Amino acid sequence: MHLLMKPVTDVVYSSTPSEESQNIFQSVLTKPSCSLASASSDHALWDQMGLLATLLIFGVSLSFASAERPMRRSLVFPMETDNSYVELVPQKDLDMGAFTLCMRVATELAKGNREIILFAYRTLYFDELNMWREADGRYGLFMSGEGVFFHLPELNTFQTHLCLTWDSKSGMAAFHVDGKRSIRKVYKSGHKVQNGGKVILGQDPDSFLKDFDSKQSFVGEITDVNMWDYVLSDAMIEALHVGKRMPRGNIFDWETIELIVNGNVKVITEEL
Amino acid sequence: MHLLMKPVTDVVYSSTPSEESQNIFQSVLTKPSCSLASASSDHALWDQMGLLATLLIFGVSLSFASAERPMRRSLVFPMETDNSYVELVPQKDLDMGAFTLCMRVATELAKGNREIILFAYRTLYFDELNMWREADGRYGLFMSGEGVFFHLPELNTFQTHLCLTWDSKSGMAAFHVDGKRSIRKVYKSGHKVQNGGKVILGQDPDSFLKDFDSKQSFVGEITDVNMWDYVLSDAMIEALHVGKRMPRGNIFDWETIELIVNGNVKVITEEL
Amino acid sequence: MHLLMKPVTDVVYSSTPSEESQNIFQSVLTKPSCSLASASSDHALWDQMGLLATLLIFGVSLSFASAERPMRRSLVFPMETDNSYVELVPQKDLDMGAFTLCMRVATELAKGNREIILFAYRTLYFDELNMWREADGRYGLFMSGEGVFFHLPELNTFQTHLCLTWDSKSGMAAFHVDGKRSIRKVYKSGHKVQNGGKVILGQDPDSFLKDFDSKQSFVGEITDVNMWDYVLSDAMIEALHVGKRMPRGNIFDWETIELIVNGNVKVITEEL
Repeated sequence: MHLLMKPVTDVVYSSTPSEESQNIFQSVLTKPSCSLASASSDHALWDQMGLLATLLIFGVSLSFASAERPMRRSLVFPMETDNSYVELVPQKDLDMGAFTLCMRVATELAKGNREIILFAYRTLYFDELNMWREADGRYGLFMSGEGVFFHLPELNTFQTHLCLTWDSKSGMAAFHVDGKRSIRKVYKSGHKVQNGGKVILGQDPDSFLKDFDSKQSFVGEITDVNMWDYVLSDAMIEALHVGKRMPRGNIFDWETIELIVNGNVKVITEEL
Repeated sequence: MHLLMKPVTDVVYSSTPSEESQNIFQSVLTKPSCSLASASSDHALWDQMGLLATLLIFGVSLSFASAERPMRRSLVFPMETDNSYVELVPQKDLDMGAFTLCMRVATELAKGNREIILFAYRTLYFDELNMWREADGRYGLFMSGEGVFFHLPELNTFQTHLCLTWDSKSGMAAFHVDGKRSIRKVYKSGHKVQNGGKVILGQDPDSFLKDFDSKQSFVGEITDVNMWDYVLSDAMIEALHVGKRMPRGNIFDWETIELIVNGNVKVITEEL
Repeated sequence: MHLLMKPVTDVVYSSTPSEESQNIFQSVLTKPSCSLASASSDHALWDQMGLLATLLIFGVSLSFASAERPMRRSLVFPMETDNSYVELVPQKDLDMGAFTLCMRVATELAKGNREIILFAYRTLYFDELNMWREADGRYGLFMSGEGVFFHLPELNTFQTHLCLTWDSKSGMAAFHVDGKRSIRKVYKSGHKVQNGGKVILGQDPDSFLKDFDSKQSFVGEITDVNMWDYVLSDAMIEALHVGKRMPRGNIFDWETIELIVNGNVKVITEEL
């Protein structure tokens, strides 16, 4: 089952008698395997997914308008699967000569030595923009081919604020971990990210988008995913890390983003 | 010998000439093995324990009312034993569809590779709610059966503020270590914690409550144990970590809790 | 090709339509190997280099005068080479009976076990003042002979503020890492640093300055290199670490320094 998570302005969190400041858990259910294997082509598959999304919409209303206590959605991926993922619907096209991608991510997988997909933007034939934790512990950015790798502190069970920036003109790429920038590395200067694909969290879509590998899947929690089609300054990223909510992402803005949930992913709403 | 630690409003701490802000050690003595093995059934055992507690009450009065210098009791478990533990008397029944359990705990055992019981709530036939440090270093929550495990930083000789939350509706469980939340894991959604048992610190009561295993016992120091029958927000737990004393626990409130001490456990009172 | 980076007061960063607070990447190009091997003597080589620098000057203008948003140049050394380095042109002679040398440095090389040159000041026959990360992880100061070594935290992908002080009278040498001073060690009291050489970053000039060793080269990012011909107090160095820009270096002042870039080093300008 697919679930379309669309924020609306209705305040729907349940009031709890005992404690007004409790967390509000918004449980979103699992699906049985949705037979993506039957899709005969990538194109047909994307269409089918759109259809499923349309057919299976749930009007799960979450409040982000109640100004007094700011809330935020968080995605919990409870276990290794080859079918659970969340599609992020962008606000504008992803043809980009630069970007900043940020998220808050927590996982216990980093203790192990397998790959972990952190972000995947795929067009029909290319991995346009993938962010990985490699099996050897490095962090990698891949745009249509060979990647560039960074030695960062390990992700862990507590939330890490992770950002990635890249600029085509200079080719400079860098990670920011909890507000601190890594060294810059030169990567694909002159390249452009192409429009026309899908962004998903939780799985790495391989060339046919039909055989996800559970050993690459994400397990843990992801929230506050924002993306800009330009490079934010170090100071701005540090401010985002400590909770500033400006500037709002112009590709993805987590406060208003539409999420299409597929498989066993729980969307919870937490107070900030 | 059992000791009932019941806070009263009399100020009894001894004034010490050299240093007015010294810790006040309230030494509570050990008992010889209290032949629990003779209990013929679990039920009889609980009754017997209650009787012992009643017979052996000490009116050890500790002040928590002297407003100027806030004091707090701390439990010191000096060595491995199979008979030393502290029973916590709850303010209300423990039938719970959610909870937050917090404590400040310090131990040097975590360097080794044995299990460490951190909290045990047992009814007649079930381990209703146990919190463990596992032999492999993971932290586990067990409610009547299989547990759920977390990779957290190791406990150590300095105080760690450890909280555990769980909510039946969503099944979400998480630890908080010094105010930072782990990933959430899905565990026993729909389950309820049952009323009618006993909460102890220091030992793991096995099915007959008569053969504690010293190799699972707690050695170190525990204080500030509080429990709520709902889930506190991340922000509230972070505030507790840094010393905020609200909201007060509605199951256990360490400031007023009654403690029944059994065996070699020292209860000291320290200034905050 | 050599590039002379000379700060001027013209504001030249390109205005970007989407976001006024973007980083400004000032890309500076690589050169093919500049056949230093043909130089027949050290002396001739320095002359030749000066000539090259003069012939190949680029008027790359960077703004440091726009007061509202302070900018700073940063040197990115993207890969191991035996020909990429940056010469720092001093404001005054380097005959010194004491010094403070500071820089902000980030590198992922420290994970490996090779030497890393961090600063090299060489006269015709002597390594007058070199700062190294040794293969065994220690940090060393060398002035015309044997060095003195310190055990410091490892450099990493995030910026470390590193200072080194030395005073001839007492012979006291010490490092400061992110504002915290190491122990002091006694080194070459009575010695003087001699004038008449060149300061470079990125390579270690060996005795003939003609066969740099790529396995000693610097890879990563260096910025905010300042030098004084006296010892700053611990408090002043701590203040520099957190961003205070006084006192300005009287040997090197990064805000106004002239840089002669050689090989594949990118000079970027970032907002502070």
